[in-house]
Amino acid sequence: MIVVGSGIAAQQLSPGDVGLQLLQNSTATALGLTVLILVLGPVSGAHFNPVVSLADWILGRRSGAGLTLPELVTYAVAQTVGAVMGSVLANAMFEVGTSISAKERATPGHLLGEVIATAGLILLIFALAATSRGVLAAPAVGAYIGAAYWFTSSTSFANPAVTVGRIFSDTFAGIAPASVPGFVVAQLVGTAVGLGLLLILFPSAARTADDAVLPRSSETARS
Amino acid sequence: MIVVGSGIAAQQLSPGDVGLQLLQNSTATALGLTVLILVLGPVSGAHFNPVVSLADWILGRRSGAGLTLPELVTYAVAQTVGAVMGSVLANAMFEVGTSISAKERATPGHLLGEVIATAGLILLIFALAATSRGVLAAPAVGAYIGAAYWFTSSTSFANPAVTVGRIFSDTFAGIAPASVPGFVVAQLVGTAVGLGLLLILFPSAARTADDAVLPRSSETARS
Amino acid sequence: MIVVGSGIAAQQLSPGDVGLQLLQNSTATALGLTVLILVLGPVSGAHFNPVVSLADWILGRRSGAGLTLPELVTYAVAQTVGAVMGSVLANAMFEVGTSISAKERATPGHLLGEVIATAGLILLIFALAATSRGVLAAPAVGAYIGAAYWFTSSTSFANPAVTVGRIFSDTFAGIAPASVPGFVVAQLVGTAVGLGLLLILFPSAARTADDAVLPRSSETARS
Amino acid sequence: MIVVGSGIAAQQLSPGDVGLQLLQNSTATALGLTVLILVLGPVSGAHFNPVVSLADWILGRRSGAGLTLPELVTYAVAQTVGAVMGSVLANAMFEVGTSISAKERATPGHLLGEVIATAGLILLIFALAATSRGVLAAPAVGAYIGAAYWFTSSTSFANPAVTVGRIFSDTFAGIAPASVPGFVVAQLVGTAVGLGLLLILFPSAARTADDAVLPRSSETARS
Repeated sequence: MIVVGSGIAAQQLSPGDVGLQLLQNSTATALGLTVLILVLGPVSGAHFNPVVSLADWILGRRSGAGLTLPELVTYAVAQTVGAVMGSVLANAMFEVGTSISAKERATPGHLLGEVIATAGLILLIFALAATSRGVLAAPAVGAYIGAAYWFTSSTSFANPAVTVGRIFSDTFAGIAPASVPGFVVAQLVGTAVGLGLLLILFPSAARTADDAVLPRSSETARS
Repeated sequence: MIVVGSGIAAQQLSPGDVGLQLLQNSTATALGLTVLILVLGPVSGAHFNPVVSLADWILGRRSGAGLTLPELVTYAVAQTVGAVMGSVLANAMFEVGTSISAKERATPGHLLGEVIATAGLILLIFALAATSRGVLAAPAVGAYIGAAYWFTSSTSFANPAVTVGRIFSDTFAGIAPASVPGFVVAQLVGTAVGLGLLLILFPSAARTADDAVLPRSSETARS
Repeated sequence: MIVVGSGIAAQQLSPGDVGLQLLQNSTATALGLTVLILVLGPVSGAHFNPVVSLADWILGRRSGAGLTLPELVTYAVAQTVGAVMGSVLANAMFEVGTSISAKERATPGHLLGEVIATAGLILLIFALAATSRGVLAAPAVGAYIGAAYWFTSSTSFANPAVTVGRIFSDTFAGIAPASVPGFVVAQLVGTAVGLGLLLILFPSAARTADDAVLPRSSETARS
Repeated sequence: MIVVGSGIAAQQLSPGDVGLQLLQNSTATALGLTVLILVLGPVSGAHFNPVVSLADWILGRRSGAGLTLPELVTYAVAQTVGAVMGSVLANAMFEVGTSISAKERATPGHLLGEVIATAGLILLIFALAATSRGVLAAPAVGAYIGAAYWFTSSTSFANPAVTVGRIFSDTFAGIAPASVPGFVVAQLVGTAVGLGLLLILFPSAARTADDAVLPRSSETARS
């Protein structure tokens, strides 16, 4: 909802300047993502991202402390449903109707961009966890995405759920369905690259997966 | 004063680009709101917003720790008077004279925007309180509003007092009187939605209402 | 140097858009001022501003803990010399030559803007001190100035030393000498207003003046 | 990669407005640099910059706690290789091909800009270390560079490795090889100026060099 909503607003308000639109879009996303992680971190860990949950599961398998496989599947489904609903809500607020994006994105350069964007995100989140600085995840992830919108060629989707959700936005924030599989594969490759860098730089990371994000509060923990 | 003043400045300095104006307006508001909460939090809790005070009263009724009903009424009056005075002061600084806005805003999309903006604000503030992170309220609320200016279609008034105050600004930050009742109703609906989400996600929130905002210092507490 | 340098850069790089220039100027100032306070706070308290030093002296007279009168005079001279040198250095970096600004600013609206901008700054700094949150002064003052550039009509000089320094910049950041006395008087009025608000909201402030800014480290403290 | 990538994106998306491009470039760099320091600080100290490593070695010689000379050389090589690889990766993501910049920059004003930019950076990093506030280095260095892009005439390279890396970008972020020696000499002069200011303002800095950056974690410390 944040990505698509601010994308629609930017496109409507600054129609002639794509660069200014992206600055508006990236600023809103960086601030909004930080807040979302602050709010939902104690509830669910604030993954919002299937590849973050996947990495949590992979790292946790060694220690038994991460997500279980059923939890991973549940998370990924919820993340994707949430992202689609976010697009639909944004479209409703701006009264633009929900349609399918025609914006093709799967060029080689953009796919490399997604590999790099996702690798950086995975490295960031689990490096903070491995060094007991998970409390910084909210502003750090917001800042990372705010930068990666610009330094990657793909504007840093870095999230399969958001990639699917952005199908349903026929704006400059959208993505055509035909480009989605390539993006998701690139994000999975980026996850592997990120985990590889993580284990080289922070060998202890495999033992600290459960702290990768803000700890869930006891009252809402899985029973 | 912050919203209207920066709105006038933006409109005067970047007359041809509404999107750039909103970026200037949202940046100034995010930073200024953060500072206002830092300064006045220890004095009054830094609500500034009748629906935040209302939610504090509702949550506090269960525990006896929130605002009392007379306090809620006093707060709402003070908030509204302050917002109107802020518009008047901003107009005086920019020597534009105080007049009534002719900007109609109450479209279905904008009303949905206000529901979502207000629900998110209520959830944020009381989620931080429920998890003993009220100290983050100042930057988090600033960041939230900075994002919500963009991702909601209504530019996130999310505050009945500010809505009334912005009547008195005939700029792109203003709102026509006829649109105010719809906005306020939408904000009340958003408050209910926000409280519902809060109690689902943080069941303990009903017991922690008094910490919802920065604690009032003893020397200025009600006697 | 930060204000004038970023002002020259903005004017050279975005010649047609004053609003975009001010956004560049205010962003650079907010970030740079935060860093300056972080670096020099432990050395001198990081006042940079004669009216902040004046308020420190006034508040400290009651407790004997603030600046002494000779220190206040020394501070004000150093602050003004530093501000002028900053303008000269900025001009040298951009090879524009140092000349006297011809930009008249002393309209009634701008003077009201300076009263409000200065009152807010004084209230912010000493409110943080009175509530033992001086550690937040660096980002909070940066954020305040970043907002006040926009919500005040005068772009928030709020500092007599900087006002004098900006005489020596013939850019949109400059100020004509004839406008300086009015600005300084308005800043002194704003200081009085800010102190008045402070003592109403935080009666204990008169007893905590010495903590108004980051404490000076022992090794550099006055002997 | 962050500097060059966001520079290419800015140039492609806002082709007519160099000032807007620099705002996009500086915003992305400030956020991205903050995140990089957060991630790699515990691994290597997150210098990224030969003159920071040089200053660490100089200060540490007095106490025996800083980098050794072989470490300094290794760091500088790794920093330069990394910066070149970053340019190459950015070019690959944006499919622009790697070519040599033709952008001459070594004017007297720009060289003065590099002296000032580098002096400020050195002073900031080691002042935080000398006052046991190294934990603030990540956001403070990000904010500093975000401001210095604007208030210096040279857009604040302030880093010999990045200067070499930016040779390989034929965009507005690039630098012609003939301008590199002048820039590097100016950065070395700035390092000396920064160290001089540091030792005047913080005489204890010579004894605290090893804390100049985030401490390296034990598991990755040099053996």
